[in-house]
Amino acid sequence: STLSLGQYTFVQNAFSFGLAVMAAATLFLWFSRSHVAPAYRMAITISGLVTAIAAYHYLQIMLSWEAAFSAVGGTLEVTGYPFNQAYRYVDWLLTVPLLLVELILVMRLSKSETVSKSVTLGGAAALMIVLGYPGEVSEDAGTRFTFWVLSMIPFIYIVYQLVVGLKGSISKQPENVRGLINGAATLVVVSWLFYPLVYLFPLIGLTGGAAVTAVEVGYTIADIVAKAVFGILILTIAMRKSEAEG
Amino acid sequence: STLSLGQYTFVQNAFSFGLAVMAAATLFLWFSRSHVAPAYRMAITISGLVTAIAAYHYLQIMLSWEAAFSAVGGTLEVTGYPFNQAYRYVDWLLTVPLLLVELILVMRLSKSETVSKSVTLGGAAALMIVLGYPGEVSEDAGTRFTFWVLSMIPFIYIVYQLVVGLKGSISKQPENVRGLINGAATLVVVSWLFYPLVYLFPLIGLTGGAAVTAVEVGYTIADIVAKAVFGILILTIAMRKSEAEG
Ligand SMILES: CC1=C(/C=C/C(C)=C/C=C/C(C)=C/C=O)C(C)(C)CCC1
Ligand SMILES: CC1=C(/C=C/C(C)=C/C=C/C(C)=C/C=O)C(C)(C)CCC1
Repeated sequence: STLSLGQYTFVQNAFSFGLAVMAAATLFLWFSRSHVAPAYRMAITISGLVTAIAAYHYLQIMLSWEAAFSAVGGTLEVTGYPFNQAYRYVDWLLTVPLLLVELILVMRLSKSETVSKSVTLGGAAALMIVLGYPGEVSEDAGTRFTFWVLSMIPFIYIVYQLVVGLKGSISKQPENVRGLINGAATLVVVSWLFYPLVYLFPLIGLTGGAAVTAVEVGYTIADIVAKAVFGILILTIAMRKSEAEG
Repeated sequence: STLSLGQYTFVQNAFSFGLAVMAAATLFLWFSRSHVAPAYRMAITISGLVTAIAAYHYLQIMLSWEAAFSAVGGTLEVTGYPFNQAYRYVDWLLTVPLLLVELILVMRLSKSETVSKSVTLGGAAALMIVLGYPGEVSEDAGTRFTFWVLSMIPFIYIVYQLVVGLKGSISKQPENVRGLINGAATLVVVSWLFYPLVYLFPLIGLTGGAAVTAVEVGYTIADIVAKAVFGILILTIAMRKSEAEG
């Protein structure tokens, strides 16, 4: 294995950290459901669902990581079980559309707008993840880059919708939360930008163990911001709106 | 083993995906119980029960799958523990009658109709599953086909009842949900049709690892539609009816 024992342990610790944060965020969000008005409870239920799904997948990722390597006499060897990257992509396939639905629900748009925006943004998000996977598991730099380009198309559409398309709906939000909702949309854009950058690490000079470590730790940090920090922000917005409308 | 490492991993990912979706759907459905009128809560409780039972069985199926194979030096070998298909049939034996009860409950028929339809449709569903099992575990194509034919008899009875028998009751539903209830009955018919088709894969030319992969992934996708997507549809119907009935 080109991975050192230190790198292996570092990645393992990052996965365990991810699991702990996601599980804690889940419980916190669900305990807080009763603090918001009924109209916002579904947004909070879904926030907790996203972190719960992520906690499960971090457990699976961590177990797959442990199964892929063994430390024999102080050096690291591969066992023959491949480290299964699909857990990450399966997690994203489920949670990325739900994260967008969270943001749409907390805005409390009309029913038809809620449904149409959920379908178009959620569908684009699913497409983005599906297009990224073949490149992630390929050993070939050209293939990795081709699927990066393809996946960027729905990505740019989503960013555009969040930056421009939601502007009209945001301006109709009550004043005391307009800044927070703008903040949530910005947090989505900024934290999501990390993913296509992390994905490029192996193409910009990182190799072997360093590349694997940078990608896995990078995705883990991005996931914590995009799911747990974002979920708490959605909860804050829901609490403020509940008070104002109370 | 005739299964490649890639096929093994793909099926493993499908099972893990199934587990995550079923568990997430369970929590979502049960958290949403409070959003429907008391008359519809039992339908939602049962929807969540169906996905909860499925989550448990997907865990068992996944563990049995992992125990049946080992990856030694990058190739897949059978361990001697057989992959236990009974978990799927036990799951269906419990959940398929409950799915029909869900649909009957959300229609809010008279008490006697609710009981009589639950007993006849639920009984036919249990019979269908019991008749399918001996063919599923048999290596012999003739046996597989014989039990397919036997199992199709209660299957066709159920489809007939859903397409024709429920028509009268559906026409008595409030207008704002008639389309959705029709949609739910159609979703049952269409998604259930997948099962006898998937079952036939090994009889229509698929062999070895490809047959196993197609059957397992096929059943998993059908289960997600028939249980999780269907459960959300039942929840939507219950929420609309609750609103309309004030
Ligand atoms: C554009 C792009 C990607 C984008 C991934 C994103 C944006 C993932 C977001 C994940 C989140 C938000 C997860 C959990 O909360 C991929 C698939 C890496 C492939 C390369 C191109
Ligand atoms: C007709 C037929 C079958 C039908 C199975 C069905 C219809 C299963 C439905 C399962 C559901 C709905 C599960 C979970 O939600 C079998 C047993 C494959 C055997 C071959 C013939």
